[in-house]
Amino acid sequence: MKQQNVDTKTNLPDTGEADECLFEYLHAEMVNYVLSSKTNGKEGEEELSPLEWMGFGVGYRIMERLTREWARFKDELDTIKFICMDLWSSLYRKQIDNLRTNHQGVYVLHDNAFRLLTNIGAPDSTQYLREAPRLLAFTCGLLRGSLANLGIVSTVTAEIATLPSCKFHVQVQRV
Amino acid sequence: MKQQNVDTKTNLPDTGEADECLFEYLHAEMVNYVLSSKTNGKEGEEELSPLEWMGFGVGYRIMERLTREWARFKDELDTIKFICMDLWSSLYRKQIDNLRTNHQGVYVLHDNAFRLLTNIGAPDSTQYLREAPRLLAFTCGLLRGSLANLGIVSTVTAEIATLPSCKFHVQVQRV
Repeated sequence: MKQQNVDTKTNLPDTGEADECLFEYLHAEMVNYVLSSKTNGKEGEEELSPLEWMGFGVGYRIMERLTREWARFKDELDTIKFICMDLWSSLYRKQIDNLRTNHQGVYVLHDNAFRLLTNIGAPDSTQYLREAPRLLAFTCGLLRGSLANLGIVSTVTAEIATLPSCKFHVQVQRV
Repeated sequence: MKQQNVDTKTNLPDTGEADECLFEYLHAEMVNYVLSSKTNGKEGEEELSPLEWMGFGVGYRIMERLTREWARFKDELDTIKFICMDLWSSLYRKQIDNLRTNHQGVYVLHDNAFRLLTNIGAPDSTQYLREAPRLLAFTCGLLRGSLANLGIVSTVTAEIATLPSCKFHVQVQRV
Protein backbone atom coordinates (compact mmCIF):
# COMPACT_ATOMS: atom_id res chain seq x y z
CA MET A 1 0.00 0.00 0.00
CA LYS A 2 1.41 3.35 -1.02
CA GLN A 3 0.96 5.69 1.87
CA GLN A 4 1.70 9.27 2.62
CA ASN A 5 2.58 10.89 5.88
CA VAL A 6 0.20 13.49 7.17
CA ASP A 7 1.35 16.12 9.60
CA THR A 8 -0.79 16.06 12.72
CA LYS A 9 1.37 17.95 15.18
CA THR A 10 -0.12 21.12 16.56
CA ASN A 11 -0.55 22.58 20.00
CA LEU A 12 -2.60 20.44 22.33
CA PRO A 13 -6.14 21.72 22.19
CA ASP A 14 -8.38 22.29 25.17
CA THR A 15 -10.65 19.23 25.19
CA GLY A 16 -11.45 18.65 28.82
CA GLU A 17 -15.02 17.96 27.88
CA ALA A 18 -14.55 14.65 26.12
CA ASP A 19 -12.29 13.51 28.89
CA GLU A 20 -14.91 14.37 31.45
CA CYS A 21 -17.63 12.29 29.84
CA LEU A 22 -15.41 9.32 28.97
CA PHE A 23 -15.90 7.74 32.38
CA GLU A 24 -19.63 8.43 32.38
CA TYR A 25 -20.18 6.90 28.96
CA LEU A 26 -18.00 3.90 29.68
CA HIS A 27 -19.85 3.39 32.95
CA ALA A 28 -23.20 3.55 31.16
CA GLU A 29 -22.06 1.02 28.54
CA MET A 30 -20.80 -1.28 31.24
CA VAL A 31 -24.10 -1.14 33.14
CA ASN A 32 -26.00 -1.96 29.96
CA TYR A 33 -23.68 -4.79 29.10
CA VAL A 34 -23.82 -6.39 32.53
CA LEU A 35 -27.61 -6.13 32.68
CA SER A 36 -28.10 -7.43 29.14
CA SER A 37 -25.78 -10.38 29.61
CA LYS A 38 -27.87 -11.61 32.54
CA THR A 39 -30.79 -13.35 30.92
CA ASN A 40 -33.04 -14.06 33.88
CA GLY A 41 -34.66 -10.63 33.61
CA LYS A 42 -35.42 -10.00 37.24
CA GLU A 43 -33.99 -6.85 38.82
CA GLY A 44 -32.25 -7.44 42.11
CA GLU A 45 -29.14 -8.06 44.12
CA GLU A 46 -28.11 -10.92 41.88
CA GLU A 47 -28.03 -8.89 38.74
CA LEU A 48 -26.05 -5.92 40.00
CA SER A 49 -23.33 -7.85 41.81
CA PRO A 50 -20.89 -7.88 38.85
CA LEU A 51 -21.05 -4.08 38.82
CA GLU A 52 -20.44 -3.96 42.54
CA TRP A 53 -17.50 -6.30 42.17
CA MET A 54 -15.96 -4.20 39.38
CA GLY A 55 -16.32 -1.16 41.59
CA PHE A 56 -14.54 -3.02 44.37
CA GLY A 57 -11.55 -3.70 42.13
CA VAL A 58 -11.35 -0.12 40.90
CA GLY A 59 -11.76 1.35 44.40
CA TYR A 60 -9.15 -0.95 45.87
CA ARG A 61 -6.55 0.01 43.30
CA ILE A 62 -7.33 3.72 43.22
CA MET A 63 -6.96 3.90 46.98
CA GLU A 64 -3.64 2.07 46.80
CA ARG A 65 -2.38 4.71 44.43
CA LEU A 66 -3.95 7.74 46.05
CA THR A 67 -2.59 7.11 49.53
CA ARG A 68 0.92 6.25 48.40
CA GLU A 69 2.51 9.37 49.79
CA TRP A 70 0.00 9.98 52.51
CA ALA A 71 0.57 9.69 56.26
CA ARG A 72 -1.21 6.91 58.14
CA PHE A 73 -4.82 7.79 58.97
CA LYS A 74 -5.59 8.49 62.64
CA ASP A 75 -8.74 6.39 62.81
CA GLU A 76 -11.76 5.14 60.92
CA LEU A 77 -13.44 8.54 60.81
CA ASP A 78 -10.29 10.08 59.41
CA THR A 79 -10.32 7.49 56.63
CA ILE A 80 -13.96 8.14 55.80
CA LYS A 81 -13.27 11.87 55.67
CA PHE A 82 -10.47 11.25 53.19
CA ILE A 83 -12.92 9.33 51.03
CA CYS A 84 -15.57 12.07 51.27
CA MET A 85 -13.17 14.79 50.31
CA ASP A 86 -10.17 13.62 48.34
CA LEU A 87 -11.40 10.47 46.68
CA TRP A 88 -14.87 11.79 45.93
CA SER A 89 -13.75 15.08 44.48
CA SER A 90 -11.22 13.43 42.24
CA LEU A 91 -13.69 10.86 40.93
CA TYR A 92 -16.96 12.72 40.93
CA ARG A 93 -15.84 16.37 40.68
CA LYS A 94 -17.38 17.36 44.00
CA GLN A 95 -17.16 16.47 47.66
CA ILE A 96 -19.73 14.56 49.67
CA ASP A 97 -22.16 17.22 50.89
CA ASN A 98 -22.93 15.73 54.23
CA LEU A 99 -21.38 13.00 56.37
CA ARG A 100 -23.18 11.61 59.37
CA THR A 101 -22.08 8.92 61.77
CA ASN A 102 -23.28 7.27 64.97
CA HIS A 103 -19.62 6.75 66.00
CA GLN A 104 -20.30 3.04 66.13
CA GLY A 105 -19.36 2.02 62.66
CA VAL A 106 -22.26 3.46 60.67
CA TYR A 107 -21.55 6.28 58.23
CA VAL A 108 -24.04 7.96 55.91
CA LEU A 109 -22.55 9.84 52.98
CA HIS A 110 -24.99 12.20 51.38
CA ASP A 111 -24.34 13.57 47.88
CA ASN A 112 -26.86 16.21 46.75
CA ALA A 113 -25.97 15.91 43.09
CA PHE A 114 -24.26 12.63 42.38
CA ARG A 115 -22.36 12.81 39.10
CA LEU A 116 -23.75 9.61 37.63
CA LEU A 117 -27.33 10.66 38.38
CA THR A 118 -27.25 14.30 37.26
CA ASN A 119 -28.04 13.59 33.63
CA ILE A 120 -30.99 11.24 34.04
CA GLY A 121 -34.41 12.83 34.23
CA ALA A 122 -35.40 16.27 35.43
CA PRO A 123 -34.32 17.33 38.92
CA ASP A 124 -36.73 16.06 41.60
CA SER A 125 -38.47 13.84 39.08
CA THR A 126 -39.25 10.28 40.06
CA GLN A 127 -39.46 8.99 36.51
CA TYR A 128 -36.25 6.99 36.55
CA LEU A 129 -36.16 6.20 40.22
CA ARG A 130 -36.62 2.50 39.58
CA GLU A 131 -33.62 2.36 37.24
CA ALA A 132 -31.34 4.44 39.45
CA PRO A 133 -29.93 1.62 41.64
CA ARG A 134 -28.08 0.18 38.66
CA LEU A 135 -26.15 3.45 38.43
CA LEU A 136 -25.10 3.22 42.07
CA ALA A 137 -23.95 -0.39 42.30
CA PHE A 138 -20.52 0.40 40.87
CA THR A 139 -19.98 3.22 43.36
CA CYS A 140 -21.12 1.06 46.32
CA GLY A 141 -18.42 -1.40 45.32
CA LEU A 142 -15.93 1.39 44.85
CA LEU A 143 -16.52 2.60 48.40
CA ARG A 144 -16.25 -0.92 49.77
CA GLY A 145 -13.05 -1.54 47.79
CA SER A 146 -11.34 1.65 48.88
CA LEU A 147 -12.16 0.93 52.53
CA ALA A 148 -10.99 -2.66 52.14
CA ASN A 149 -7.63 -1.43 50.89
CA LEU A 150 -7.21 0.45 54.16
CA GLY A 151 -8.16 -2.58 56.23
CA ILE A 152 -11.77 -1.65 56.91
CA VAL A 153 -14.24 -4.41 56.07
CA SER A 154 -17.69 -3.02 55.42
CA THR A 155 -20.98 -3.38 53.62
CA VAL A 156 -22.17 -0.46 51.53
CA THR A 157 -25.71 0.18 50.34
CA ALA A 158 -27.25 3.11 48.49
CA GLU A 159 -30.51 4.93 48.96
CA ILE A 160 -32.24 7.36 46.62
CA ALA A 161 -35.20 9.53 47.46
CA THR A 162 -35.14 12.23 44.79
CA LEU A 163 -32.79 12.47 41.83
CA PRO A 164 -29.99 13.46 41.55
CA SER A 165 -29.35 13.19 45.27
CA CYS A 166 -28.41 9.94 46.97
CA LYS A 167 -27.05 8.49 50.18
CA PHE A 168 -24.47 5.79 50.71
CA HIS A 169 -24.72 3.81 53.93
CA VAL A 170 -21.44 2.36 55.10
CA GLN A 171 -21.68 -0.26 57.83
CA VAL A 172 -18.28 -1.24 59.17
CA GLN A 173 -17.97 -4.89 60.18
CA ARG A 174 -16.47 -5.24 63.63
CA VAL A 175 -14.83 -8.58 64.17
CA MET B 1 -30.12 5.73 64.67
CA LYS B 2 -28.55 8.61 66.55
CA GLN B 3 -26.20 10.31 64.18
CA GLN B 4 -23.87 13.23 64.26
CA ASN B 5 -22.90 15.58 61.54
CA VAL B 6 -19.28 15.64 60.58
CA ASP B 7 -17.74 18.64 58.89
CA THR B 8 -16.11 17.64 55.62
CA LYS B 9 -15.82 20.97 53.86
CA THR B 10 -12.32 22.07 53.02
CA ASN B 11 -10.60 23.35 49.94
CA LEU B 12 -10.69 20.99 47.01
CA PRO B 13 -7.47 19.04 47.09
CA ASP B 14 -5.28 18.29 44.13
CA THR B 15 -6.18 14.73 43.22
CA GLY B 16 -5.69 14.56 39.48
CA GLU B 17 -4.02 11.21 39.91
CA ALA B 18 -7.05 9.16 40.94
CA ASP B 19 -9.07 10.75 38.20
CA GLU B 20 -6.44 9.85 35.67
CA CYS B 21 -6.44 6.17 36.52
CA LEU B 22 -10.21 5.84 36.95
CA PHE B 23 -10.75 5.23 33.25
CA GLU B 24 -7.83 2.82 33.03
CA TYR B 25 -8.99 0.72 35.97
CA LEU B 26 -12.59 0.69 34.84
CA HIS B 27 -11.46 -0.34 31.38
CA ALA B 28 -9.37 -3.15 32.83
CA GLU B 29 -12.27 -4.42 34.96
CA MET B 30 -14.55 -4.30 31.96
CA VAL B 31 -12.12 -6.31 29.81
CA ASN B 32 -11.84 -8.92 32.55
CA TYR B 33 -15.58 -9.11 33.02
CA VAL B 34 -16.35 -9.47 29.33
CA LEU B 35 -13.68 -12.13 28.87
CA SER B 36 -14.68 -14.06 31.97
CA SER B 37 -18.38 -14.06 31.11
CA LYS B 38 -17.66 -15.74 27.80
CA THR B 39 -17.23 -19.37 28.69
CA ASN B 40 -16.05 -20.86 25.43
CA GLY B 41 -12.42 -20.03 26.24
CA LYS B 42 -11.10 -19.48 22.75
CA GLU B 43 -9.51 -16.10 22.01
CA GLY B 44 -10.80 -14.48 18.88
CA GLU B 45 -13.08 -12.06 17.12
CA GLU B 46 -16.12 -13.55 18.81
CA GLU B 47 -14.93 -12.88 22.30
CA LEU B 48 -13.83 -9.28 21.91
CA SER B 49 -16.87 -8.03 20.05
CA PRO B 50 -18.76 -6.84 23.16
CA LEU B 51 -15.77 -4.61 23.98
CA GLU B 52 -15.70 -3.30 20.44
CA TRP B 53 -19.40 -2.58 20.61
CA MET B 54 -19.09 -0.71 23.90
CA GLY B 55 -16.32 1.36 22.38
CA PHE B 56 -18.61 2.14 19.47
CA GLY B 57 -21.29 3.52 21.80
CA VAL B 58 -18.80 5.61 23.76
CA GLY B 59 -17.09 6.94 20.64
CA TYR B 60 -20.38 7.83 18.98
CA ARG B 61 -21.57 9.86 21.93
CA ILE B 62 -18.27 11.51 22.72
CA MET B 63 -18.01 12.71 19.14
CA GLU B 64 -21.55 14.07 19.26
CA ARG B 65 -20.58 16.13 22.24
CA LEU B 66 -17.12 17.16 21.14
CA THR B 67 -18.14 18.54 17.75
CA ARG B 68 -21.16 20.44 19.03
CA GLU B 69 -19.68 23.85 18.46
CA TRP B 70 -17.34 22.89 15.70
CA ALA B 71 -17.57 23.95 12.06
CA ARG B 72 -18.33 21.28 9.47
CA PHE B 73 -15.26 19.26 8.50
CA LYS B 74 -13.88 19.88 5.01
CA ASP B 75 -13.41 16.23 4.08
CA GLU B 76 -12.59 12.77 5.35
CA LEU B 77 -8.96 13.58 6.01
CA ASP B 78 -9.96 16.63 8.00
CA THR B 79 -12.16 14.42 10.16
CA ILE B 80 -9.43 11.89 10.73
CA LYS B 81 -7.05 14.68 11.70
CA PHE B 82 -9.55 15.89 14.26
CA ILE B 83 -9.64 12.40 15.74
CA CYS B 84 -5.84 12.13 15.80
CA MET B 85 -5.42 15.44 17.54
CA ASP B 86 -8.42 16.58 19.52
CA LEU B 87 -10.18 13.35 20.34
CA TRP B 88 -7.02 11.37 21.00
CA SER B 89 -5.39 13.94 23.21
CA SER B 90 -8.48 14.37 25.30
CA LEU B 91 -8.97 10.64 25.78
CA TYR B 92 -5.45 9.31 25.85
CA ARG B 93 -3.44 12.35 26.97
CA LYS B 94 -1.36 12.49 23.79
CA GLN B 95 -1.83 12.88 20.07
CA ILE B 96 -1.42 10.18 17.47
CA ASP B 97 2.28 10.22 16.61
CA ASN B 98 1.96 9.41 12.95
CA LEU B 99 -0.88 9.38 10.47
CA ARG B 100 -0.49 7.77 7.07
CA THR B 101 -3.00 7.45 4.27
CA ASN B 102 -3.17 6.19 0.71
CA HIS B 103 -5.79 8.88 -0.03
CA GLN B 104 -8.18 6.08 -1.00
CA GLY B 105 -9.90 5.46 2.26
CA VAL B 106 -7.13 3.73 4.20
CA TYR B 107 -5.68 5.49 7.23
CA VAL B 108 -3.04 4.15 9.59
CA LEU B 109 -2.87 5.83 12.98
CA HIS B 110 0.36 5.10 14.79
CA ASP B 111 0.63 5.69 18.54
CA ASN B 112 4.14 5.18 19.94
CA ALA B 113 3.00 4.90 23.53
CA PHE B 114 -0.66 4.01 23.70
CA ARG B 115 -2.08 4.88 27.11
CA LEU B 116 -3.75 1.53 27.73
CA LEU B 117 -0.58 -0.36 26.87
CA THR B 118 2.02 1.70 28.72
CA ASN B 119 1.64 -0.12 32.01
CA ILE B 120 1.82 -3.70 30.82
CA GLY B 121 5.23 -5.28 30.64
CA ALA B 122 8.60 -3.67 30.08
CA PRO B 123 9.05 -1.47 27.00
CA ASP B 124 9.87 -3.51 23.90
CA SER B 125 9.08 -6.73 25.70
CA THR B 126 6.97 -9.32 23.93
CA GLN B 127 5.77 -11.05 27.09
CA TYR B 128 2.20 -9.79 26.99
CA LEU B 129 1.90 -9.45 23.23
CA ARG B 130 -0.67 -12.23 23.05
CA GLU B 131 -2.94 -10.52 25.60
CA ALA B 132 -2.60 -7.04 24.12
CA PRO B 133 -5.44 -7.23 21.54
CA ARG B 134 -8.03 -7.34 24.30
CA LEU B 135 -6.81 -3.92 25.42
CA LEU B 136 -7.29 -2.50 21.94
CA ALA B 137 -10.77 -3.80 21.08
CA PHE B 138 -12.51 -1.02 22.98
CA THR B 139 -10.48 1.65 21.20
CA CYS B 140 -11.09 0.10 17.77
CA GLY B 141 -14.80 0.41 18.48
CA LEU B 142 -14.34 3.91 19.77
CA LEU B 143 -12.69 4.96 16.52
CA ARG B 144 -15.41 3.29 14.47
CA GLY B 145 -18.13 4.92 16.58
CA SER B 146 -16.71 8.40 16.38
CA LEU B 147 -16.36 8.11 12.60
CA ALA B 148 -19.88 6.71 12.33
CA ASN B 149 -21.24 9.74 14.15
CA LEU B 150 -19.76 11.91 11.41
CA GLY B 151 -21.24 9.77 8.65
CA ILE B 152 -18.15 7.74 7.83
CA VAL B 153 -18.72 3.99 7.82
CA SER B 154 -15.50 2.09 8.40
CA THR B 155 -13.84 -1.00 9.75
CA VAL B 156 -11.05 -0.55 12.27
CA THR B 157 -8.41 -3.09 13.22
CA ALA B 158 -5.39 -2.85 15.45
CA GLU B 159 -1.84 -4.08 15.05
CA ILE B 160 0.88 -4.39 17.67
CA ALA B 161 4.51 -5.11 16.99
CA THR B 162 6.27 -3.98 20.17
CA LEU B 163 4.66 -2.67 23.34
CA PRO B 164 3.57 -0.01 24.10
CA SER B 165 3.32 1.12 20.49
CA CYS B 166 0.40 0.18 18.26
CA LYS B 167 -1.25 0.99 14.96
CA PHE B 168 -4.92 1.39 14.15
CA HIS B 169 -5.95 0.65 10.58
CA VAL B 170 -9.06 2.50 9.46
CA GLN B 171 -10.62 1.26 6.24
CA VAL B 172 -13.41 3.52 5.07
CA GLN B 173 -16.27 1.71 3.34
CA ARG B 174 -17.14 3.34 0.05
CA VAL B 175 -20.71 2.63 -1.00
